[in-house]
Amino acid sequence: MTGDEDLDSIGLRRLRELYDHSDESLAVPIRYEHLRDRAKEAMTDGRYQYLAGGVGREETMAANRRAFDEWQLVPTVLRDVSDRSLSVSLFGRDLDCPICVAPVASQRVMHEEGDLASARAAASLGVPYAASSGSSTTLEAIAEELGDTPKLLQLKLMPDRDVLASMVDRADEAGFDAIVVTVDAPVPGWRVRLLESGYRPTQEGATVANYFNDPAFRASLADPLEEDPEAAVAAYRDLVWDSSMSWDDLAYLRTLTDLPVFVKGILDPADAERVVETGADGVVVSNHGGRQLDGAVGALDQLPDVADAVGDRGRVLFDSGIRQGPDVIKALALGADAVLVGRPYLFGLAIDGEDGVRQVLLNLLADLHMTMGLAGFRSLEDVDRSAVTPR
Amino acid sequence: MTGDEDLDSIGLRRLRELYDHSDESLAVPIRYEHLRDRAKEAMTDGRYQYLAGGVGREETMAANRRAFDEWQLVPTVLRDVSDRSLSVSLFGRDLDCPICVAPVASQRVMHEEGDLASARAAASLGVPYAASSGSSTTLEAIAEELGDTPKLLQLKLMPDRDVLASMVDRADEAGFDAIVVTVDAPVPGWRVRLLESGYRPTQEGATVANYFNDPAFRASLADPLEEDPEAAVAAYRDLVWDSSMSWDDLAYLRTLTDLPVFVKGILDPADAERVVETGADGVVVSNHGGRQLDGAVGALDQLPDVADAVGDRGRVLFDSGIRQGPDVIKALALGADAVLVGRPYLFGLAIDGEDGVRQVLLNLLADLHMTMGLAGFRSLEDVDRSAVTPR
Amino acid sequence: MTGDEDLDSIGLRRLRELYDHSDESLAVPIRYEHLRDRAKEAMTDGRYQYLAGGVGREETMAANRRAFDEWQLVPTVLRDVSDRSLSVSLFGRDLDCPICVAPVASQRVMHEEGDLASARAAASLGVPYAASSGSSTTLEAIAEELGDTPKLLQLKLMPDRDVLASMVDRADEAGFDAIVVTVDAPVPGWRVRLLESGYRPTQEGATVANYFNDPAFRASLADPLEEDPEAAVAAYRDLVWDSSMSWDDLAYLRTLTDLPVFVKGILDPADAERVVETGADGVVVSNHGGRQLDGAVGALDQLPDVADAVGDRGRVLFDSGIRQGPDVIKALALGADAVLVGRPYLFGLAIDGEDGVRQVLLNLLADLHMTMGLAGFRSLEDVDRSAVTPR
Amino acid sequence: MTGDEDLDSIGLRRLRELYDHSDESLAVPIRYEHLRDRAKEAMTDGRYQYLAGGVGREETMAANRRAFDEWQLVPTVLRDVSDRSLSVSLFGRDLDCPICVAPVASQRVMHEEGDLASARAAASLGVPYAASSGSSTTLEAIAEELGDTPKLLQLKLMPDRDVLASMVDRADEAGFDAIVVTVDAPVPGWRVRLLESGYRPTQEGATVANYFNDPAFRASLADPLEEDPEAAVAAYRDLVWDSSMSWDDLAYLRTLTDLPVFVKGILDPADAERVVETGADGVVVSNHGGRQLDGAVGALDQLPDVADAVGDRGRVLFDSGIRQGPDVIKALALGADAVLVGRPYLFGLAIDGEDGVRQVLLNLLADLHMTMGLAGFRSLEDVDRSAVTPR
Repeated sequence: MTGDEDLDSIGLRRLRELYDHSDESLAVPIRYEHLRDRAKEAMTDGRYQYLAGGVGREETMAANRRAFDEWQLVPTVLRDVSDRSLSVSLFGRDLDCPICVAPVASQRVMHEEGDLASARAAASLGVPYAASSGSSTTLEAIAEELGDTPKLLQLKLMPDRDVLASMVDRADEAGFDAIVVTVDAPVPGWRVRLLESGYRPTQEGATVANYFNDPAFRASLADPLEEDPEAAVAAYRDLVWDSSMSWDDLAYLRTLTDLPVFVKGILDPADAERVVETGADGVVVSNHGGRQLDGAVGALDQLPDVADAVGDRGRVLFDSGIRQGPDVIKALALGADAVLVGRPYLFGLAIDGEDGVRQVLLNLLADLHMTMGLAGFRSLEDVDRSAVTPR
Repeated sequence: MTGDEDLDSIGLRRLRELYDHSDESLAVPIRYEHLRDRAKEAMTDGRYQYLAGGVGREETMAANRRAFDEWQLVPTVLRDVSDRSLSVSLFGRDLDCPICVAPVASQRVMHEEGDLASARAAASLGVPYAASSGSSTTLEAIAEELGDTPKLLQLKLMPDRDVLASMVDRADEAGFDAIVVTVDAPVPGWRVRLLESGYRPTQEGATVANYFNDPAFRASLADPLEEDPEAAVAAYRDLVWDSSMSWDDLAYLRTLTDLPVFVKGILDPADAERVVETGADGVVVSNHGGRQLDGAVGALDQLPDVADAVGDRGRVLFDSGIRQGPDVIKALALGADAVLVGRPYLFGLAIDGEDGVRQVLLNLLADLHMTMGLAGFRSLEDVDRSAVTPR
Repeated sequence: MTGDEDLDSIGLRRLRELYDHSDESLAVPIRYEHLRDRAKEAMTDGRYQYLAGGVGREETMAANRRAFDEWQLVPTVLRDVSDRSLSVSLFGRDLDCPICVAPVASQRVMHEEGDLASARAAASLGVPYAASSGSSTTLEAIAEELGDTPKLLQLKLMPDRDVLASMVDRADEAGFDAIVVTVDAPVPGWRVRLLESGYRPTQEGATVANYFNDPAFRASLADPLEEDPEAAVAAYRDLVWDSSMSWDDLAYLRTLTDLPVFVKGILDPADAERVVETGADGVVVSNHGGRQLDGAVGALDQLPDVADAVGDRGRVLFDSGIRQGPDVIKALALGADAVLVGRPYLFGLAIDGEDGVRQVLLNLLADLHMTMGLAGFRSLEDVDRSAVTPR
Repeated sequence: MTGDEDLDSIGLRRLRELYDHSDESLAVPIRYEHLRDRAKEAMTDGRYQYLAGGVGREETMAANRRAFDEWQLVPTVLRDVSDRSLSVSLFGRDLDCPICVAPVASQRVMHEEGDLASARAAASLGVPYAASSGSSTTLEAIAEELGDTPKLLQLKLMPDRDVLASMVDRADEAGFDAIVVTVDAPVPGWRVRLLESGYRPTQEGATVANYFNDPAFRASLADPLEEDPEAAVAAYRDLVWDSSMSWDDLAYLRTLTDLPVFVKGILDPADAERVVETGADGVVVSNHGGRQLDGAVGALDQLPDVADAVGDRGRVLFDSGIRQGPDVIKALALGADAVLVGRPYLFGLAIDGEDGVRQVLLNLLADLHMTMGLAGFRSLEDVDRSAVTPR
């Protein structure tokens, strides 16, 4: 247990807390739609569109939720669920829970304390945290807030292998437990809502401090960063939006570190196989929350086949659409070892910074804990495909 | 026939009554949605949310209704349906109808006369009644109102076996025909609407009089109940929300009584088999009306497989989603011997107490009676799977 | 050709008429929803609810339309569709079109001229007309308006075989081409909208003149009709709502006449087989437009199996849900020889009497005629299952 | 590359342009629904209904979009998508992109510059253009605007073979690359919205200049066109709305020219086979955008079977429902070689003439270009059925 809360008994405790202090607690609404709407009130419209929206007609976003609706839980009874544990074992650690804070860049756009607030909230609960390398602070600063909390560093493959190596080394030194490589964003998505609103996160000075403080990145610049910050921003962009990245670059990354490497953005089972054949430790089934390719298949739709393709050669995380406790059980039943959650905590961040994130995570964990008991599970290891039935 | 009405001729009689006295009668609306909306007007918002709501995003509630939509009736013609009977044979009795009032605790929240009003309405019609052991009056008081009306006592498994035995003995002595054990509520559900509204039924003094008057329960308390009523409430809560209850506890209950025992909250066919193997007399297929586990399968979706698993080793009741006559025929066609109805009568109770419950039951019975004729059935025994077709 | 219009060239002519005189013509809207809304404006609420509504939650009504949505037309091209004929051969006659006006009682409720207006409209176009025996005028009066127009008499089986025989004899003498026996209404449906509105057609003096002028019916009354009209109404009700009618009664009817007999309200293929085995000439696949049994299967859903069951031993008419030209093609493709149309013409009747009915029929016929050409058919005989594909 | 833009790099460039100049650019909205609504504001109601509407209840229009929803993209990753090409090879040319401007008559109704504005926009980008022979200007004038841009001439089969031959010859001389024969409009559709609005494009003087300037057409008139223009309009109508056209007429057309001939409006695989057996070069799978037969199957639903039927004996274009980039990939994955786009550019035309069309095309091309990268394709030749999965 790495946080202040014993997550294995979070359910009833949180329920009582909500009942007893509903006035304060509910500044952060429980229901996803209310949470989103409250966040909308707390932000400028451009920022909200950036956070809440997807690409195109948002058909991928809709597919993500519809995929959850296609599966229903079949509870079992009289199993003695008095001692339930949320813990799972992953990248060599015992995690307190199967829910990980998803990596999201530019968090300063949602709240002035940005990533640090999110990291503090996760740390206070012992919830695993995936830091974005595109964060508004250094990865070292985030790691410090996280302390012993399980932590992953997300990054993209980059043509400048020095910068890539530097980033990986820093993650290793800062005590990160694993690397997450995002591969589903070779080019930007067709962000209609952003284009319509004219909003651009970079206009807001959401600086990518993590890169600007990287020695290899700084060394790669023609002129010192302070002298030509615009050129540095352009260099950063060219680095992380290089659409030529391929399996060779993943293979190279694999040689750089002994940390577990997870490849995020996998939907095709054949790609999943190639990931583990390339020596990576697992995949994150994800369509980027519907923020890259529109018209794509729901992430959960692909989870069973991807999990089968990976088999026991790797681990499977799931991302894209998790909103409440039953969703987590469904994802675990269909092959995931753990899940990432994104928009919900970001709405919490926008509403009330660190405490907003904490409230959202507490609600999700408590919901999951009660759901386990109601579905008939003491341990998440017991959750398999028999827990769900197609609609 | 145990009530004042001959249910085997209720259809046309009720239709005419509604036509002739539509002004008075329609104080209790016929259509479910109107009934619910009228009840909403008649209650405080917290009470209404408690009664009408489900858990989570209410996906289980939606699944319950969608499951009914998945099946459609195929009527047959020219069968001479002039003498139709609603009666069914169950737990050693001939019931006047296949509809039973579902067990619901805290009925004082809906109307000041609470369970007694509901029981009186059921008795006046001869409609079977399942009393909740968490009632606001003693089970003996309810039994007295019910007289010869078929009656069941619902209870939960409890770690204090003396209290369990006492409750079962009292049911036997009070003339109950069967015991219904609820097993789908090892822990409370994630009641979002309640958490948002801040409403708690217990704040309203919805005392659990049935337990407070139980000698074994009183004897189990450290201090006399009157001296420390708060401790008694806590003891009650610990008793009925014990998540360690298991198949052993069900087996023990079975040894306590010769009354038929039905296990309520079964959705998994394997659980259903184990119920009858444990010596119980049948199951109630139910997801608690969508009030415990969200994201669960619709109760009717599981009925055919559960009925097949039980076979002729037991009887099958159905609960969760019954709103009108055709629903009853669908449930019987898919394997149920009888059904329980919940929210509709509670809305009636909220609107107009005993008479409200009676109007709701009369409408449902009359609708069922006419539906039988239109679908081509004289006897409910003739209703089998050929009566329905998947959509 | 029995009417004033050559239906085999109705399409373009009607299109041009609508373009040229859109102001007058569109007093009767073209789109079904607009037609219905206009009719609503033209009637008292009770009358509108009676006409437009179905039973229960109107799930059967919804199923009727959904069933059409489940099939889509696959047009073929380059077939030379310059000479298209709407004619079909049925009950020994060449009908100008495959659309028949459905039998509906109490038409005085919709317009003061009632059935006579509808009959005149049908006759002016040569559209087959099914008269209801529960009409507000005598069947002889309707027959006179119809002249040589193909005509059917709808009636119900009745316990008083003298009245039944009398009615059939009168139909024969008046020149009707066939008898339609309604068998899906052994008891009234659960008409929620009517019960809520408190409206009853009979309160409006919608007398059943056809029965009141029947010599056998009059002879069956204890007292002369004029002396005790209320008793006569009760006798009428007992006669047509006798739920004991069975296959024996149908067999008896068969002995009464050489006219073709069609049995209306068949949804179960086994019933359809029994119909033809009983010597009747065909079936009308129908769920009474969703006005009898709620929760029933869509009529079109059952058409293919019923048509297969009938085979070449009889003919198949279809009723329930026809709204526009493509619907007719779908029904013919799935096994119908012709269709009945109900609510659309009644909305026309409510809006503008005889001319309202005519406008509705003209639009439907023209739509059908153009649809034939676009789907690639010259003759309706060519329309088979290859014309449609499941959605 | 025939236009001013290098379409093989359009994606990021357009994205940046939209970000940088969002104020001006967005006069033409990006999202289809917004585009349509803006066009509605820019037009009289009758014109808008003519352009936006379909036939009947617009079920075919709905089916077109639903068909796209039935398929979802399965992206692949790490493929090096830095050099992506939108080009395809068709009718002996290398097209810059697989999107062709669909042939639409009466474009003067949308904007005073009509077809010429659309052609100029297409030419400026090098986007292939299908001219309607029912255009408000001559085909020669359109060809001149198009210059070297790939161009097709759409026409209908006509009973006057001189006029047909003249039209084909003119197309050949004017440098058109192919002929598109529309065969799904033997008769007009049941245009409910038009009938309701009373609007007729021809009332607006949307003269069919292309025919009026055709020497064979002029020679076919009894009186010189200028002396009796109404008779000329009638003659034109009889010519292009001749419902007797058949496979023989298509075979005759085939003999008239060496230009590739595509047959537009094919939905039945058997018809597709006959098209290639008749010597035509390919088909356009289309239901005329839902403007001819209502209740028809979605065009995309038929694409796979039609493509299989054509095999390598011809090429397959797709029309009806394309709205955004992912739609194009879906159509190519299901068997199309290229697609036609209609309503979107016409809305652009209505909003802002030539520039409106250009903005719409630029957005669609950029969306497609980014979508290619996100889905994992460098070349459109690589897009096969493995790119999509049924929903």
